[in-house]
Amino acid sequence: MDELHVDTLLLSVGADLPWLTGYEAMPLERLTMLVVPREATATLVVARLEAPRVREEPEVFSLRAWEETEDPVGIVAGLIPSSARTVAVGDQTWARFVLELQRERPALQWHRGAEITAPLRMVKDAAEIDALASAAHAVDEVAVAMRERPFAGRTEAEVSREIIERMLALGHERANFAIVAAGPNGASPHHDAGDRRIAEGDVVLCDFGGTMAGYCSDITRMYAVGEPVGEVRDTYAVLMEAQERAVQAAQVGVACAEVDRVARSVIAAAGFGDRFIHRTGHGIGVDAHEDPYLVAGNDLPLQPGHAFSVEPGIYLPNRFGLRLEDIVVATADGPERLNHAPRDLAVVG
Amino acid sequence: MDELHVDTLLLSVGADLPWLTGYEAMPLERLTMLVVPREATATLVVARLEAPRVREEPEVFSLRAWEETEDPVGIVAGLIPSSARTVAVGDQTWARFVLELQRERPALQWHRGAEITAPLRMVKDAAEIDALASAAHAVDEVAVAMRERPFAGRTEAEVSREIIERMLALGHERANFAIVAAGPNGASPHHDAGDRRIAEGDVVLCDFGGTMAGYCSDITRMYAVGEPVGEVRDTYAVLMEAQERAVQAAQVGVACAEVDRVARSVIAAAGFGDRFIHRTGHGIGVDAHEDPYLVAGNDLPLQPGHAFSVEPGIYLPNRFGLRLEDIVVATADGPERLNHAPRDLAVVG
Repeated sequence: MDELHVDTLLLSVGADLPWLTGYEAMPLERLTMLVVPREATATLVVARLEAPRVREEPEVFSLRAWEETEDPVGIVAGLIPSSARTVAVGDQTWARFVLELQRERPALQWHRGAEITAPLRMVKDAAEIDALASAAHAVDEVAVAMRERPFAGRTEAEVSREIIERMLALGHERANFAIVAAGPNGASPHHDAGDRRIAEGDVVLCDFGGTMAGYCSDITRMYAVGEPVGEVRDTYAVLMEAQERAVQAAQVGVACAEVDRVARSVIAAAGFGDRFIHRTGHGIGVDAHEDPYLVAGNDLPLQPGHAFSVEPGIYLPNRFGLRLEDIVVATADGPERLNHAPRDLAVVG
Repeated sequence: MDELHVDTLLLSVGADLPWLTGYEAMPLERLTMLVVPREATATLVVARLEAPRVREEPEVFSLRAWEETEDPVGIVAGLIPSSARTVAVGDQTWARFVLELQRERPALQWHRGAEITAPLRMVKDAAEIDALASAAHAVDEVAVAMRERPFAGRTEAEVSREIIERMLALGHERANFAIVAAGPNGASPHHDAGDRRIAEGDVVLCDFGGTMAGYCSDITRMYAVGEPVGEVRDTYAVLMEAQERAVQAAQVGVACAEVDRVARSVIAAAGFGDRFIHRTGHGIGVDAHEDPYLVAGNDLPLQPGHAFSVEPGIYLPNRFGLRLEDIVVATADGPERLNHAPRDLAVVG
């Protein structure tokens, strides 16, 4: 905050608050906000009916519970020191509260909270990497188990439900998503698992993740129902090569954009340049998507402790889509994959 | 928008966008935003990889898919007419996008999107009331089924999980919450179902709801493990009376605050005035909580089609908590409850 000349940091919904305090704001119309002045004690402003859920930490913050007839925005505005000129507010804070605070304190300059929290959250310590590895290990087990399960005749939604149940059974407290996209649906990278009944000959993209002990998992594996045709095998070989080369490129000191460029160049060389329609990866931690992003234009050099997905894809509209994703940590000894489930195209029934 | 002199409406994450267009923005760092100028065609700005999920409606909006290397904030800023002076932005839009848009278009005045959408969403039409009634009927069935289920010996989390599974099995596409709070935990109105093992003598508060065909359910029922002691029965009788009187007060033309006052006066007369620590209710529709709020200070008169919870509670710290909740619709013929599960204190094993 000193470096960025931010006088007060305001955190509400989103991962910054639990990452700092262990308390997660409910995404509701009742404002929860941690007010962190640069040179005074922090205060957690929370509705009185939520207050019993807060584990108080007098060393870290004091509690200001508001009654239903009080105005929490006015309370927060009053806790921002009158001398403050610049505040930063958590990225996912609801717009209505920002606008209401701007009305109460019109002279303040506003910054994104991520300017302060992202550089801190981005570099994971050993305990955080352990947590990411445990979550990765659990989804590896799910990915392996699915190799022995029937796909043909079940709907995407049914397979998605099974994946969610397996993640929960293996220790995730929350399933964040379980994309199951069969045949042509695979060409929509964020397809909602739906009523399509999976059939012989389908290539099925499964991309799933959740939260375990506060840290996120995220993995994509491909399943072919019956022996895949040569074109699918050949395209998948290109993708595996692109992913492997991108992982190996993720050395400390290399720019995020360079990892993206490496993946893209392999895919482009095979003639699929315009079929890889998203960035190569995203950071991961207490949020499923966070800094650093592996995307063209991001010159940030990788540092030891950066954790991110490497997930190139090839999408052929109306036909099929392929993606392969692992979580990777940058270390002084080179990139380390946290996912170890087999990366080949699994043939299932 | 004419009445409020708003030149452009901006909608992103939250219920306004699916309510208007059927498309729900993913709560991700990739901006999705519907730009609705007062006098021009609307445009949905969406990441290219999300675009295949959009069902295009050329009559309603045109699509502007952005590439990973483009700046979506700049695209939105460019779609706000240069003549615009006032914009309104959806309440739950991420703060980072509001701040970035304010930087791009510093002369604009900003309003809450709810100023435009809440008055429209608040009054439900017949199809919306049918949808709320169907969702209410499903959670009624869950509440009834739980009367025959064992509680003693199971953890709160296990009972919560069963309630979630039952909601999904009965047609909810999403479970939004399933509070199970036993014994002293009931005194925390938003307690997270946890490891506490439910025991003989516990009074258990179950407050659960989800989304079914796009509309929300929300119900609270109380379960006593074994015959409750007289104090629990007596306190619950006060609560039932307060809830019944508040429901009957919810006549068209009556102020929201008056319904709250009626519930509160019954509880206060019994000596528990300071133990009812939240408002009496919230509106419900595509959001679990939305306008109108039944709270002191809200002078809004009820209109036919307003749908809301009536849920007084009495919370005795370190001992137990009680709440009773139904969804009610204001009609010209008087208040109509949508929930019909028995309201007595169920005695379970």
